[in-house]
Amino acid sequence: MRTSQYLLSTVKETPSDAEIISHKLMLRAGMIRRLGTGMFSYLPTGVRVLRKVEEIVRQEMNKAGAIEVLLPMVQPAELWQESGRWHTMDAELLRFKDRHQRDYILGPTHEEVITDLVRREITSYKQLPLNLYQVQTKFRDERRPRFGVMRAREFIMKDAYSFHLGQASLQQTYDAMYSAYCNIFNRLGLDYRPVQADSGAIGGSVSHEFHVLAESGEDAIAFSDSSDYAANIEMAEALEPKGERPAATKALCEVATPDAGTVSEVAALLQVSNSTIAKTLFVLAEADEQGKQQLVALVLRGDHDLNELKAEKLDGIASPLQFANDEQIRALCGAGAGSVGPVGLNIKIIADRSAVHMADFVVGANKDGYHLTGVNWERDIPQYQVADIRNIVAGDPSPCGFGNLIIKRGIEVGHIFQLGEKYSKALKAGVLNEEGKHQTMTMGCYGVGVSRIVAAAIEQNHDEYGIIWPDAIAPFQVALIPMNMHKSVRIAEVTEQLYQQLTAAGVDVLFDDRRERPGVMFADMELIGVPHTIVVGERNLDNQQVEYKNRRTGEKVMLDIATVVTEIQQKLTC
Amino acid sequence: MRTSQYLLSTVKETPSDAEIISHKLMLRAGMIRRLGTGMFSYLPTGVRVLRKVEEIVRQEMNKAGAIEVLLPMVQPAELWQESGRWHTMDAELLRFKDRHQRDYILGPTHEEVITDLVRREITSYKQLPLNLYQVQTKFRDERRPRFGVMRAREFIMKDAYSFHLGQASLQQTYDAMYSAYCNIFNRLGLDYRPVQADSGAIGGSVSHEFHVLAESGEDAIAFSDSSDYAANIEMAEALEPKGERPAATKALCEVATPDAGTVSEVAALLQVSNSTIAKTLFVLAEADEQGKQQLVALVLRGDHDLNELKAEKLDGIASPLQFANDEQIRALCGAGAGSVGPVGLNIKIIADRSAVHMADFVVGANKDGYHLTGVNWERDIPQYQVADIRNIVAGDPSPCGFGNLIIKRGIEVGHIFQLGEKYSKALKAGVLNEEGKHQTMTMGCYGVGVSRIVAAAIEQNHDEYGIIWPDAIAPFQVALIPMNMHKSVRIAEVTEQLYQQLTAAGVDVLFDDRRERPGVMFADMELIGVPHTIVVGERNLDNQQVEYKNRRTGEKVMLDIATVVTEIQQKLTC
Repeated sequence: MRTSQYLLSTVKETPSDAEIISHKLMLRAGMIRRLGTGMFSYLPTGVRVLRKVEEIVRQEMNKAGAIEVLLPMVQPAELWQESGRWHTMDAELLRFKDRHQRDYILGPTHEEVITDLVRREITSYKQLPLNLYQVQTKFRDERRPRFGVMRAREFIMKDAYSFHLGQASLQQTYDAMYSAYCNIFNRLGLDYRPVQADSGAIGGSVSHEFHVLAESGEDAIAFSDSSDYAANIEMAEALEPKGERPAATKALCEVATPDAGTVSEVAALLQVSNSTIAKTLFVLAEADEQGKQQLVALVLRGDHDLNELKAEKLDGIASPLQFANDEQIRALCGAGAGSVGPVGLNIKIIADRSAVHMADFVVGANKDGYHLTGVNWERDIPQYQVADIRNIVAGDPSPCGFGNLIIKRGIEVGHIFQLGEKYSKALKAGVLNEEGKHQTMTMGCYGVGVSRIVAAAIEQNHDEYGIIWPDAIAPFQVALIPMNMHKSVRIAEVTEQLYQQLTAAGVDVLFDDRRERPGVMFADMELIGVPHTIVVGERNLDNQQVEYKNRRTGEKVMLDIATVVTEIQQKLTC
Repeated sequence: MRTSQYLLSTVKETPSDAEIISHKLMLRAGMIRRLGTGMFSYLPTGVRVLRKVEEIVRQEMNKAGAIEVLLPMVQPAELWQESGRWHTMDAELLRFKDRHQRDYILGPTHEEVITDLVRREITSYKQLPLNLYQVQTKFRDERRPRFGVMRAREFIMKDAYSFHLGQASLQQTYDAMYSAYCNIFNRLGLDYRPVQADSGAIGGSVSHEFHVLAESGEDAIAFSDSSDYAANIEMAEALEPKGERPAATKALCEVATPDAGTVSEVAALLQVSNSTIAKTLFVLAEADEQGKQQLVALVLRGDHDLNELKAEKLDGIASPLQFANDEQIRALCGAGAGSVGPVGLNIKIIADRSAVHMADFVVGANKDGYHLTGVNWERDIPQYQVADIRNIVAGDPSPCGFGNLIIKRGIEVGHIFQLGEKYSKALKAGVLNEEGKHQTMTMGCYGVGVSRIVAAAIEQNHDEYGIIWPDAIAPFQVALIPMNMHKSVRIAEVTEQLYQQLTAAGVDVLFDDRRERPGVMFADMELIGVPHTIVVGERNLDNQQVEYKNRRTGEKVMLDIATVVTEIQQKLTC
């Protein structure tokens, strides 16, 4: 491609409405333009990267035995009513009516459509397993779209759905998809981690997320410093502290704590550390037969945070988690949320594993402006249950049993789920099994955020000058920059010849043939992140050489014109 | 690909709800399944064909200098309000609201979005011309979707839009797109014709349609039997008949024609041919200053059909064409539509070029149940205008001046337009020209119906056994069929070896490794239209040979196993 015949559309100014670096750089590099809230047009440079990501995803899916299909983006409401999600999903599901006032949705995902398709096509266990995928534009009417294509309303996904007779077959395909995803992210040239994850609203049990590591990542991931263990912080188990709980040494004592509501304020007032204070949170229990919901007290060490996902999975607690309001708390404890504690409460109390290892600790006195010190389990709080209900923190022992946890930030770009029978049961998708009996199919689903990968790659690979693409997904592999070509026939000729040779060798070259100052050309090529640059200048031509520069390492070397093509081919990592 | 690892999904029964052959065969060949009205899921065989069509389109667009972009499918209403189409388009434009009650549409086409994008990106004539394209799923809420993917609501299009300073540059890109389209349809292996066309609702002046010829085509195309001339029948000019009009020989005479309302009924009653009867149609004139619309009489030879497009382009006639209702006709003529004629009417009369060459003809008497015979222009109808307002018929002289017209049926699969300033003016999309002055850009637009091509190719290429794909877009180029592989190690080994060799040579092979009877395998491969078949059987193996069969010609030859790969490569036309 020649720049003169291309739409580069780079921008010098940093756009004011972009919050994160990938959004800024995608705008500045002429990759995207905003059309409306959470909706972006891809300019040529953006499309080139998108298509390369898509192609790698497609190749690895095919290699793993998945078969490509293409499902409609507009879906009839009936299928979503059948699965129940028509009612359970909120405004994120975009609903509309056609000219005949029939209800439709704009597809955010395709479990219903694919399950409907497969229940009609597949009748026998002999046709299983089956793994179908598509690469498609989706729409989610996010409450707060932001960060450019990272959290857009309209986005591109690869979604795959597998169908099985039984768990063993599902596990096999799940493992194959896990490997395929590793291959994809390896080939994309990204630093990523597969992590154990929660399966959220999609349903099912086992699931892994694939995260591109980047400081700006929205998610926190816990790693073992001594093993392969990695999990979304939501999922990582906090082990029971080792050793025995210290014995009680102090008597219970009520102290005035005026104006101190938070753990830190109480700790400062009493001159103790946050970890000697226990905080008490109130959530609603599941409704009883009369539809009433009791309160449940959750007790955590003051320096720990509640993990809502762990809490809502506990028996007897309403899911999704509902916190008690001020009125309900005051009615139960006789005090406001800043002065409450588990002592003397006649409700279910669930203490975090770390909280039950505390002795002589501090809690609210259930009396406004007062706390209790010298509190001890059993003696002062006879009835309680123990559970893991906190977020892990850096330094916690790894749940795998090896080493301690470190925490890094990641951007979720892939997610694989074992769905089980959630959709196949609701849509009655079954086959005849070996005994000739009807059996519900077991399902898996596997997503890759194609457009999100583009943004995540930039978050991980950039510097002050712009993007630094991995070779595999760079819009162009090589930038060919002639110095003042329009004044020198020799430079024009050599550059043209190199352009022809590199192109013929299958290298993806951008020949910057604009009448621009060298500085402008260098800045543009660095901004759009071309990984390899060849500069053709008068002085080096005297030695039959050109200058090569590596965008990532900054390495500069001279290359003989005669061997440029082979040298570049050796440098390309894809 | 091995059939055992593929989703063939062929169906023996002819689906009852499919009206045309391509729809039937796409269902039977396991290419598509209906999800809802005008919405189809593509199964693997359908996707394979789609992707091949897409790839050829993309390659030829790139070669012609167009640059790929990707615009959102969801578009804000504001842009359509700015262009005016928010109000002028009917329910075909699918409108909806998001969670914040903002108005959007689901894109049927992208003139507004691209013009908005370009007006922001492009500021100088130096950046022009620019030709941007995308391959994308579109949605049109058709009143009556039918014929499978041929007229679906959700469909895939390649749409391109070019921007220019002035007509000369537009013409140059238009010509390049015309050539690119010819290259595309040549490479697809389809029998097609570019034809002069009307530009319809998109706007603009010059336009060409690209039609795949097929007896089942919805459109009629007029060709000269002696030149390259081809035009949509809507557009083909009917020349003035040669020679002088015969002189009047009969006197005007009123005859009773009870129960005869249509041309054929009157002709039968009076024992004359349809061509000696003139029919009169009434349409509305443009509104006058008071907003009133007079009637206008259109007079045609009884054996000719009105061409509405030609009529509505005439000065003084309301566009789109509005026919007068029964009440209006009776108020003017004093008779019903079956007994009306131009004699004695005090309104504008427009006679077709062929109608004014009639003498001693028959018209309605403006008196229920009566006609006039021996009618002659001037003598009986002193005031009238002459225009070309009829459809051409086979045998008419070609408007190009060479030969006569023949009529064939076609399926529109591409359309290129010179839009002019329709959208750039409405959206104020201009650049600074060489004199530094603001100048509105001139636009072209160029569409290819990617999913429609798949259906059109089948309409043109099929027989009683199924589809006959051109090599370039076949889901598989070669079917490899072993006879009773599961009973013969030798057959299994040779077939496996051929599969590996052909695949390694880049040939797209479907290895039918099912435990099926040979008849079932042959029928499936013929149904899905694989153009080349290799059969591995015991008897031929004794001679180190396999049987080759050509799907289109039926040709059967023996090939030596040692040279199968090269022989197949020679047979492939792409």
